[in-house]
Amino acid sequence: MSALDLSNLSASSDRVSLFEMGPRDGLQNEAAVPTQAKVALIESLADAGVMRIEAGSFVSPKWVPQMADSSDVLRQIRRQAGVVYSALTPNVKGLELALDAKASEVAIFGAASQSFSQRNINCSIEESIERFIPLMDMAKAANIPVRGYVSCVLGCPYEGEIAASEVARVSEILYKMGCYEISLGDTIGVGTPLKARKMLQAVMERVPVEKLALHFHDTYGQALANITACLDLGVRSFDASVAGLGGCPYAKGASGNLASEDLVYMLHGLGLKTGIDLEKLALAGFGISKQLNRLNGSKVANAILQGAKA
Amino acid sequence: MSALDLSNLSASSDRVSLFEMGPRDGLQNEAAVPTQAKVALIESLADAGVMRIEAGSFVSPKWVPQMADSSDVLRQIRRQAGVVYSALTPNVKGLELALDAKASEVAIFGAASQSFSQRNINCSIEESIERFIPLMDMAKAANIPVRGYVSCVLGCPYEGEIAASEVARVSEILYKMGCYEISLGDTIGVGTPLKARKMLQAVMERVPVEKLALHFHDTYGQALANITACLDLGVRSFDASVAGLGGCPYAKGASGNLASEDLVYMLHGLGLKTGIDLEKLALAGFGISKQLNRLNGSKVANAILQGAKA
Repeated sequence: MSALDLSNLSASSDRVSLFEMGPRDGLQNEAAVPTQAKVALIESLADAGVMRIEAGSFVSPKWVPQMADSSDVLRQIRRQAGVVYSALTPNVKGLELALDAKASEVAIFGAASQSFSQRNINCSIEESIERFIPLMDMAKAANIPVRGYVSCVLGCPYEGEIAASEVARVSEILYKMGCYEISLGDTIGVGTPLKARKMLQAVMERVPVEKLALHFHDTYGQALANITACLDLGVRSFDASVAGLGGCPYAKGASGNLASEDLVYMLHGLGLKTGIDLEKLALAGFGISKQLNRLNGSKVANAILQGAKA
Repeated sequence: MSALDLSNLSASSDRVSLFEMGPRDGLQNEAAVPTQAKVALIESLADAGVMRIEAGSFVSPKWVPQMADSSDVLRQIRRQAGVVYSALTPNVKGLELALDAKASEVAIFGAASQSFSQRNINCSIEESIERFIPLMDMAKAANIPVRGYVSCVLGCPYEGEIAASEVARVSEILYKMGCYEISLGDTIGVGTPLKARKMLQAVMERVPVEKLALHFHDTYGQALANITACLDLGVRSFDASVAGLGGCPYAKGASGNLASEDLVYMLHGLGLKTGIDLEKLALAGFGISKQLNRLNGSKVANAILQGAKA
């Protein structure tokens, strides 16, 4: 295993891309908010310089009632040039709705854990991937990019340890199916730095690192440490959620998503460029936190608000 | 600058030492709690396997009323063999009180920032160090170990950036004065990983790494990432505070100390040994959090309590 080198991160590329998960992965695990609040959140994120925003999800409202208005959200947002507004689409019907609502791109999801796949979507990993074939065909015909999520890459709530080789295998399948980027999700946030690095290295043997993103949850406070341990491998795409929106569905009351503000603060400190105005990002997070009547889950946002001097 | 290598951390030494700051650096920034609650906290920390605990502070109760009962705390705790119960001592009078109360060791503090030194203790860095000379003499005569803190090592609330060379200079002075270990404090938690690594490397040119500890605050959520970036340099001593006790005095409402539980979880995940029972540690944190009627600031503790499966 090669050593990590933080001293020359900007040599390969100093541009990093944040995929903002708050309006989808975040809000689907919070109390329902009015459509207008989602629209305001998405617009304020784009105003802060966020270029990729997961705006909604076309799953059954029976399962995720918080996302029932995703069509309205996508239709009502004032769009900014160059900003991607994506939607999660579990099937062809979801894709049709996403296309109707003019999503810029869509996302599909697989698991690196058979038990998680069975319990979450009631089928094996292989069956779940087969079901995406008609969706991929339709997306290709419609010329809309598809992103792929792999969940449980550093552990599963049912199986515990997950082999990095299995993460690599599922990632490669999604990539070869046509996903333009594979986002590697530590769904329950249990990973630690060396494990995260080894997992990414295993996946990079099958999928080019330029096509990989890290989606690390912060349930155990490890997300930034894990990203730090992976940065010099060349990964430059990260998922995070403003204000740390979204709890952990497997541990009510625990934290879930990594807060975008905390990630951006670290990346900027490392000399990497996100194009994001951190103060505006924090304001976007305080807006939705107030709407939800919840504490802001970003340490950076709270430090900025409270007037910490740096 | 050499690259970081997480793959072989245990080759140099897989033993790491946690210095628990909760009862002092933590509680001095919280509402006052009864002496008995402090005693219970310290005993529960030792029961969890914590071997070094900062139990109190002999500063003027006028400035830090929360620590006015440090003598009583040190006298009342049921002591465990091999566990260090330390106290912060700003001067000879403090040392006398610490010796009377049978502190196992004491600690003194300097700043790497002139402005911080002036505003915090009303004298220059040099004057503050000179004042410690009689204390060091008395400690030597009493055969009691002295630990040294250096604050503002990654930034100052008044000056902003602090040169690593200045941190190295102050650290070397405290080390040469006889401090057996120098704890490098990111007092306002503003550091990021590469900066932390460069700072430690600069200090290591003046003080052996075996004599250095990292005391990183988590105000901006960066503490574990910063430690990750430093681990392979050989540092094996870390300060943290159970339940993240202690806010940030420079930003009310923001977080302060790194939560011990989150640190221990990461270290164990990296294959390093702390000798600490994480579940018992988390229970100690919940006990004092309940006493303070405050949320537990440790993500790991909350995840464990809420029954997240790993």
